[in-house]
Amino acid sequence: MRVALSQLNPTVGALGRNAARVGESYLTAMKSGAELVLFSELCLCGYPPKDLLLYDSFIQRERELILNQLAPLTKNGAPPMLIGATHKEEDKLYNAALLLDNGSIKAVHRKSLLPNYDVFDEARYFHSAPALEPEMFSGLPAAVTICEDIWNDRDFFQPPLYNSDPLETLLDKGTRLLINLSASPYHLGKHRLREELLSFIAKKYGCGIIYLNQVGGNDELIFDGHSLVLNNRGELLCRANAFSEDLLFVETDELFKPAHKPAPPLEEGIDSIYRALIMGVRDYVWKTGFSKVVLGLSGGVDSALVAALAADAIGPKNVLGILMPSPYSSEHSIEDALVLAENLGIKHRIKRIDGPFEAFLKLLNKSGAPELDLAEENLQARIRGSIVMHASNREGYLALATGNKSELAVGYCTLYGDMAGGLAVIADLPKMMVYELSRYINSVKGRAVIPENTITKPPSAELRPDQKDEDSLPPYEVLDAILQLYIEENASPEAIRKSGFDSETVNRVLRMVDRAEFKRRQAAPGLRVTTRAFGSGRRMPIARSYDL
Amino acid sequence: MRVALSQLNPTVGALGRNAARVGESYLTAMKSGAELVLFSELCLCGYPPKDLLLYDSFIQRERELILNQLAPLTKNGAPPMLIGATHKEEDKLYNAALLLDNGSIKAVHRKSLLPNYDVFDEARYFHSAPALEPEMFSGLPAAVTICEDIWNDRDFFQPPLYNSDPLETLLDKGTRLLINLSASPYHLGKHRLREELLSFIAKKYGCGIIYLNQVGGNDELIFDGHSLVLNNRGELLCRANAFSEDLLFVETDELFKPAHKPAPPLEEGIDSIYRALIMGVRDYVWKTGFSKVVLGLSGGVDSALVAALAADAIGPKNVLGILMPSPYSSEHSIEDALVLAENLGIKHRIKRIDGPFEAFLKLLNKSGAPELDLAEENLQARIRGSIVMHASNREGYLALATGNKSELAVGYCTLYGDMAGGLAVIADLPKMMVYELSRYINSVKGRAVIPENTITKPPSAELRPDQKDEDSLPPYEVLDAILQLYIEENASPEAIRKSGFDSETVNRVLRMVDRAEFKRRQAAPGLRVTTRAFGSGRRMPIARSYDL
Repeated sequence: MRVALSQLNPTVGALGRNAARVGESYLTAMKSGAELVLFSELCLCGYPPKDLLLYDSFIQRERELILNQLAPLTKNGAPPMLIGATHKEEDKLYNAALLLDNGSIKAVHRKSLLPNYDVFDEARYFHSAPALEPEMFSGLPAAVTICEDIWNDRDFFQPPLYNSDPLETLLDKGTRLLINLSASPYHLGKHRLREELLSFIAKKYGCGIIYLNQVGGNDELIFDGHSLVLNNRGELLCRANAFSEDLLFVETDELFKPAHKPAPPLEEGIDSIYRALIMGVRDYVWKTGFSKVVLGLSGGVDSALVAALAADAIGPKNVLGILMPSPYSSEHSIEDALVLAENLGIKHRIKRIDGPFEAFLKLLNKSGAPELDLAEENLQARIRGSIVMHASNREGYLALATGNKSELAVGYCTLYGDMAGGLAVIADLPKMMVYELSRYINSVKGRAVIPENTITKPPSAELRPDQKDEDSLPPYEVLDAILQLYIEENASPEAIRKSGFDSETVNRVLRMVDRAEFKRRQAAPGLRVTTRAFGSGRRMPIARSYDL
Repeated sequence: MRVALSQLNPTVGALGRNAARVGESYLTAMKSGAELVLFSELCLCGYPPKDLLLYDSFIQRERELILNQLAPLTKNGAPPMLIGATHKEEDKLYNAALLLDNGSIKAVHRKSLLPNYDVFDEARYFHSAPALEPEMFSGLPAAVTICEDIWNDRDFFQPPLYNSDPLETLLDKGTRLLINLSASPYHLGKHRLREELLSFIAKKYGCGIIYLNQVGGNDELIFDGHSLVLNNRGELLCRANAFSEDLLFVETDELFKPAHKPAPPLEEGIDSIYRALIMGVRDYVWKTGFSKVVLGLSGGVDSALVAALAADAIGPKNVLGILMPSPYSSEHSIEDALVLAENLGIKHRIKRIDGPFEAFLKLLNKSGAPELDLAEENLQARIRGSIVMHASNREGYLALATGNKSELAVGYCTLYGDMAGGLAVIADLPKMMVYELSRYINSVKGRAVIPENTITKPPSAELRPDQKDEDSLPPYEVLDAILQLYIEENASPEAIRKSGFDSETVNRVLRMVDRAEFKRRQAAPGLRVTTRAFGSGRRMPIARSYDL
């Protein structure tokens, strides 16, 4: 049986547009001889549809498209289609895989395990499958599962998260093929984890595996695609594209033979983060209806990196950098930013903030002269934020915020200032990774598009004379290591101290993190690339005491 | 048996402080002859503790306080204590009621139904009770339940949300008393709903009911207290304070006799919203470590109402209003704001924004003259936001945002401008309710503290000459009615049109709501007073298409 894996990039909520795209892809697959065409989890809704699922009208419209537009395609001997969609029965909503065949819904396979941790809220919307049954495809008994259903193997995960394992139920019933329709978001390390898990399962049960994943960015989440096919020995037969749409074919016979050749090496590291962010920016910009972006260029590495990513994502002609020097800006900052803009081929403007800054000082300080306190540092950042947003509002640019994860963690950033923008591109990238990615981009481009000086100079907000980040923060090597333990691993203060950091630094950092929650609550959505990003993946109270 | 209901106001995360408060209250109750002392759901964590629960160190510290500080109080013939706390067993976390007696944990009653809708995420943290057993208190068999456990009666709610009803299990086992420890947040109508439900249950099962609720504000959520005691005829015997701490005593004998007198009438309407918001502001300010607040005073009704609420919440001397007129501000606006400040007895300053505005125009407009577009309207709002935040940063004021729910819904507000602030006091109050609450406050005070002109004049943002809200929006009566259907009831566009609104208006409003999601994602936390507030209760994608 020739199976097509249609790895699509749906837009959340765009039911009609997504259905049209599914229809096109189905016809293409059919013309190439597909005998079964697969689409990913909740492919018409786009994942995650969030509270759109609470609108009955949304659920009804999805079902109408399936019955009136997609099911009819499968008539007259056309191949069946297996597609992720909602399914409502007795007032209960399920996350399901619908088998469309000969013009109607022939079978419904419901998701059993509903992820409700990190960024996931599926227990908010869905009920769990009451029973699991195999499906026959051209005589081949198959387990049809959805995303999380395969993520609870008790030999792979210890302890397993859920009490039951749908694979045990389904694969004990004599199935030889495991099909999984997913919308599994990317983070660094996820590619490898998925391949290891799938290989483990294939070997354990002696089954072939067809794993189809959504691709594309939806708000904070980046779905990497990277669909996989493994034979019943656990050998990888093929991978679909990472970070772009694809249409992959597999002959099921191949699932039960040895692989012809070893799998190509897995690309996973800073290169995958680069590609993830490029797609994340592009999809956010386009899916929100914009075509161009604006950002402040400080001469520092964060804004330089964001500009470089944006240029690669949507083309340099669609990127506007605004240089906004103040009396405290160094000469090299302006030069570095100009060189960057030239290297990238993006548009730029210079708007000195002295005029508005002086007008504010006159209004707010008795003497009219600077008092050089934190309020004035924030004020400069907010003037810049206002200038960027003015370009956004007047000229239709989407504003990009340029802060990194380390700053956002400890609150070394200004609400309504440098935090202003519709998308925070590197908000989940710790500072040390900002450097790594900047060097990676320069190495890929074969020249220092991000000026070497921007990468090597000591980081500074330049909001008062001779300011350096390290006057206020521990060195970033130390800071990032502590943050990783605290944010990504939920380590206790005691455990972090035991990892080799001095008490005072640990306490100071953790206190800064906790106190900055009010800023993060108002932060722009940030593209997620680590195992735990701020935003919907980390839900913290603001008004609390700090004795964790 | 004399039972004490200790209705406390815990601060989320403040384990040590909350435990000390529990200890004090326990001793007070004991001195008044209590034979059993009750504390509300997750009383040491404070509700909702959110992702603090993901830190093992947090769970361990709570348990240490229970074992080392609270359990010892119950030694030597002191009364037992029943307290809401987490309970970890075999790596599974439960939301539980612990019975402390004679120095140790005598029994654990686990929560069965875990709310995971609206603002609730309990399936993210907790497992559900594996089995339910009654508890004996001085020979009286009782069902010990936690919050949601009583909210699934299949005769009261149709259809019920969960498959099982813990009350059926527990009350069939011969129990005569139902104890419920809650952290049940307020919204308009909740008091009545609770009393109706409890009366229904008491009558259905012929049991007495002791219902203890948390009180206090925690971020967006306002817990109203309002604990209740009903006899086995479903008659209300007493209510604890609404919106403040209380210590209530009940003799269990009374639960099985007719009530001596009818219950006092239920106060519920705009008066309860007033008290909810006062407590919500006060707790947010104090629990974030502030003592004073700043806000912009425009002369309009929204900022006037917020100023009046803040003055009542933390005292007028702790409230600073900043008047920030522009060239487009009307004379009456300045006068109205000055009269308001005088009426309330709050501090005020006047900071005309002309200087910074002109400086920005010079920087951003070729001619240096105004272009009167949306970008300049937003710019004025952002200058004001920067001035308010400057006072916050320099002088230690918490900034209050003054936007109402109607504006926030349709995006008639400026990100980083009038949306700036740490708390959005009336963000869940539709405009028509803003008027109602303003009139209520004037009637309670016996004079127009909020100037009559502020209430009666046509609402205007005054960001360009002769601007009126109704130039851009439908009349608020219409707008609010549509928003209520769409936001609070998840009604479809078709259903809203059928309620008697013309298609064009409905489509325009819904489109505005959907498109403003990016603004709301960056909004300050808003105090929740309706059945569906923006924020954690409504989780919508940003980058989506608009064909709901």
